[in-house]
This record gives sequence, C-alpha cells and structure tokens, in this order.
Amino acid sequence: MSGNEEERGPVDLVIVGSVGIDDVATPAESRKDLLGGSASYACAAASFFARTGMVGIVGSDFPGDYLSLYRSLGIDTGGLETVEGSTFRWAGVYEDNMIERRTISTELNVFETFSPELPAAYRSAPYLLLGNISPGLQLHVLDQAADVRFTAADTMNLWIDTDRDALMNVISRVDMLTLNDGEARMLTGKWGLRDCARVILDLGPEYVVIKKGEHGAMLFSKDEVFIVPAYPVENVIDPTGAGDMFAGATLGVLAAAGTGAGLAEVKKALFQGAVVASFGVEDFSLEGLRNLAPAQIHERLDALRRMTSMG
Amino acid sequence: MSGNEEERGPVDLVIVGSVGIDDVATPAESRKDLLGGSASYACAAASFFARTGMVGIVGSDFPGDYLSLYRSLGIDTGGLETVEGSTFRWAGVYEDNMIERRTISTELNVFETFSPELPAAYRSAPYLLLGNISPGLQLHVLDQAADVRFTAADTMNLWIDTDRDALMNVISRVDMLTLNDGEARMLTGKWGLRDCARVILDLGPEYVVIKKGEHGAMLFSKDEVFIVPAYPVENVIDPTGAGDMFAGATLGVLAAAGTGAGLAEVKKALFQGAVVASFGVEDFSLEGLRNLAPAQIHERLDALRRMTSMG
Repeated sequence: MSGNEEERGPVDLVIVGSVGIDDVATPAESRKDLLGGSASYACAAASFFARTGMVGIVGSDFPGDYLSLYRSLGIDTGGLETVEGSTFRWAGVYEDNMIERRTISTELNVFETFSPELPAAYRSAPYLLLGNISPGLQLHVLDQAADVRFTAADTMNLWIDTDRDALMNVISRVDMLTLNDGEARMLTGKWGLRDCARVILDLGPEYVVIKKGEHGAMLFSKDEVFIVPAYPVENVIDPTGAGDMFAGATLGVLAAAGTGAGLAEVKKALFQGAVVASFGVEDFSLEGLRNLAPAQIHERLDALRRMTSMG
Repeated sequence: MSGNEEERGPVDLVIVGSVGIDDVATPAESRKDLLGGSASYACAAASFFARTGMVGIVGSDFPGDYLSLYRSLGIDTGGLETVEGSTFRWAGVYEDNMIERRTISTELNVFETFSPELPAAYRSAPYLLLGNISPGLQLHVLDQAADVRFTAADTMNLWIDTDRDALMNVISRVDMLTLNDGEARMLTGKWGLRDCARVILDLGPEYVVIKKGEHGAMLFSKDEVFIVPAYPVENVIDPTGAGDMFAGATLGVLAAAGTGAGLAEVKKALFQGAVVASFGVEDFSLEGLRNLAPAQIHERLDALRRMTSMG
C-alpha cells in the first residue's frame, strides 16, 4: 500500500474511525451487509473536498468491492489495516420517525484489538478528524499527530457513560468537538444547549458543534453562536452516518481551503457539511455519495443559502 | 367599551382566540391562575407592532387585573365579550424536556357558548389572525371579515381529529396556515415536511408555516422554502403560548408595515415572531412580554441575524 500512497502524495486530512458491515432496517426497507462505520462515512464525505486518508481496521472478510469503492471515492486507504478475522458488524432498526434507532447487535470482531497507527505519510497531515471510536484510541492517535494544526473529535453516549475521564482528556486536546444534543446534555448535566456549550468550551476546544439531526446543528465559540440549518430532504432513506458525513465534509472543506479555521471558514464548511450529509441520507450506506457530482453539491448549497437568506 | 374603541381608532389586526386561566406545572415550578389562551398570547405579541383588537370571551370571574394588563400591553379589548359564568380554564404539566406536555384538565365554561362577533370597528381591519379555536368558529369569523386583505389561521391536532371538514374549509380560505410538525403530518398523512407543505398549499393558502418548537419553523410557498431559526433561549421557563406569540408577532409586523405580505415581508416578520416568542417563553404567562422594551426586541433580532449570517 505504501507504493500507492507515494504515488498519490501526502494527505491533507486524516480520519480515524470505525469501518463496519451494517444491517439496517427502516420502516420502508431492510438491507444487509452494507458498508458502514464512522470512518467510511466521514472519509467518503471529506474526499469530495480534500485528499483524505483513512485510518481503520477491517477483517480478512472485508469485500474487495468495498475497498474499490473507497478508492473510486478518492479515499487514500494507506492507513486501513487488514487483519485475520471478521470485520466489525452492526445491526440496527429505525423507528417510524427515522430518528430514534435500536441497536440489534454489535460484533466488535477485529475492532476489539484495534490500535490505530498513522502511516508515516499521515503524520504531517495538517487536519485530523477523530471519528467516533473510544476516547482511549482517540488519545493514542492524538499522540502520533504532532504536527496537526486542527483536530476535531466526535463522540457518543457510550463513551460519556463508560470512559468519561479519557473523553475529557480528548476534549481538552482538540480544537472542535462534535456531538449531538442528547450527548451534550449527558456530558454536561445542563439542559440548555448554550449552557452545555459553555461547559464544553471551558474544557478547551475553540468550537463546539451540537448536532440536532433533521433540525440542523449549532456552532458555539467563546463569543459567537451560529445556527447551521439542515437541508430539508424530501425523503430520508437511511440516516445512518449523517453525523459522520457532516463532520467529514466540514473537515474536508477546511483542509482543502487550508486557510485556517477562523469562524467564517468554519461556518462555510459546516454549511457544506450539512449539504453533503443531506445527499448521504437519501440512500443506504455510501450510495447517496457514490455518484454525487460537485455541481449537485454547489446547487444544493445555493438552495440552502437561499432558504436562510432574508433577501 | 365602544367609547374606548372610538378613542383609539380602528385596529390594523384582529386576533380571535381563546382567553383562559391556566394552571401550569413545569419540572422547576408550578403556577396557578395564570392568564393564558391563544388570544392572550397572540395579542400581547402582536401589540408590540400593530394596533391589535382581541376577539374572545371571558366569564364574570375574569380578574380585572388581567383586563388592565391587556390594556397596558396596548391591546384593544373592544371585541372581548364578558358573560355570566366562569372563564375557560386549562391545566397542564410539562415533561422534563419542556416540550411534551400533558393536559390535566380543560373546563370550557363560557367558551362553550362562544360565538365570536366582530365589532363594527374591527370589520374593516386589513389583517386577521384566527387563533387556535374550533374551525367552525374560525369560519364564522371569516364570514364577517369581508374586507380583510390577509388572513392567517392556526390549528391543532384536536380539530384535525374531530372537525376535519370544517378545518379544510378554513384552510381553503386563508392566506397562511400555521401548525406544528406533528399536526402537519397528521393533517396530510405525509412524513417529510416539504411533502406536507405541498399538500396543504394545494388546498389554497399562499403560505404554510410549520412550527418545530425550539428548532424554529419553516415557511413554504409554492416556489420557496425558508428556514426560520429559533432564538436559542438560555433558560425556558414556560413554553405555553410560544406558537401563539410567534404567529401574533408575525401578523403584527405584517399589519404594521402594511406593505402587503410578499415573501420578503413574511420572512422578516417570521424572524420578529421568533424573537418575540423567545422572550415570551422566558417567564410564565405574559410576564416575559409585559416589560419588554422594543430595544430588547431589536437587539435580539440583530443577534439572531448574526447567528444565521455567514459573514
């Protein structure tokens, strides 16, 4: 794989996360053996904008077609480790509202022994997204990324419950934390999202992004609040990975611009994140992104800007 | 009362709705004998902007202090009828999330015989808001408002269930319908809000406003979608009447401008509606509006614009 890397040059953005095979049931349809995982969704979204390297682990059963899909999406898989055994699997069912979901089963498999190592070519990447994996693994990656200029981390309720100290450590070392509204409340013990954000900002990050699913997201910095709208999708087919695509595209835009991550840049990037995620939820797995043309992203971005413009 | 009316001149906006005495319990606090009802909230919000006349009914037990409060808020009470008996009463309890609520009791009392009649001075008012009362009563008011230029109606799940035909008739005769997301889904049998809006627009209104509580609202016309943000309140004390304040202020702004209700005007008015409602939920009953200064509204409006601006 290192030959491949060298051909393609260094990456601008490294994304660490899970790679999995998902069974997803929605009220309308059930699908089995889908490509999933936080790294898959985030890298696919980011690679529309920036040269993105994936750090993850798969088993020897991981379908070659999925590796091909990563590459056709432009993802650098130089940091994707393949080991003997089965790939991580997740199965879930969405309720009628397409928001709440029940996990039917989780098989960690090769993920259980995952210790993410950044290939040499990734260690100087200026942007880093720590997808939703255990805070211990996120810290291990942070220790290897000495030259990183901007790091974002995502998390979930599980780690708030089971590994709070390590998570607090992660939060203190990143520039941006993304999490959903319920998780923000759980982490801080506050109800109002501005209160939640204040507590998290005090832990260290420059930005907190609180995600609200179909209702968009809110960006908080010490001095500002920014309301990120969601693009109103006609028909949500599969919301799995929406938050990962949102974060991935956001970091991709920042990494591609390379002009730093001031508030104005972050706002623009979050709009792009919302748009890419809106395409992603219009089909299962990565299907909504696979044939997506940049012109479609621009068109929907313009539409979203009109929907939020007084003019 | 008619003497009072003549002194104050004709009204720009007529609001018909319920006037009630509420018992409200939130996780933090319980309050009894509060001034409530859709007409109270909507008129209080509208009267910051336009000369607003209230059409409603109260019993002989209605506190004089509440009448004084209406007048101190600048509401014209020329259409508020007082009859022998008890005022409408409602009691409700909010869940921990301050969104879902349970109705503990409803006593219609004098509301049971309510037949809203517009005073002569109200019949030529150019703007009309049919607050949340039965669609039969809303139709009765529409029949009296021959010269109205712009009518908005609000509704609720109860009427969708029990009086659908009359409600459909109301919808076909108004310029704007406001309802919440759950009600839009219930009314149309669609899930996606754009689909819901399309069905409702086909019934006749030029605008549909779908309210999403703390997540703001969406405005739909035949050709456009506009995302109305909610102002992120630090601490919601009592969300009762939020939708009524939102609609009341919106209509008040339109009536005050008197420049018609094109899309640009409606967008601006909805922003003001969101801001006034945000003050309203920061205290029980009308307390959040009672001492509110126009400068505070402008300040929060500027803040909300900044929160949605890319600049």
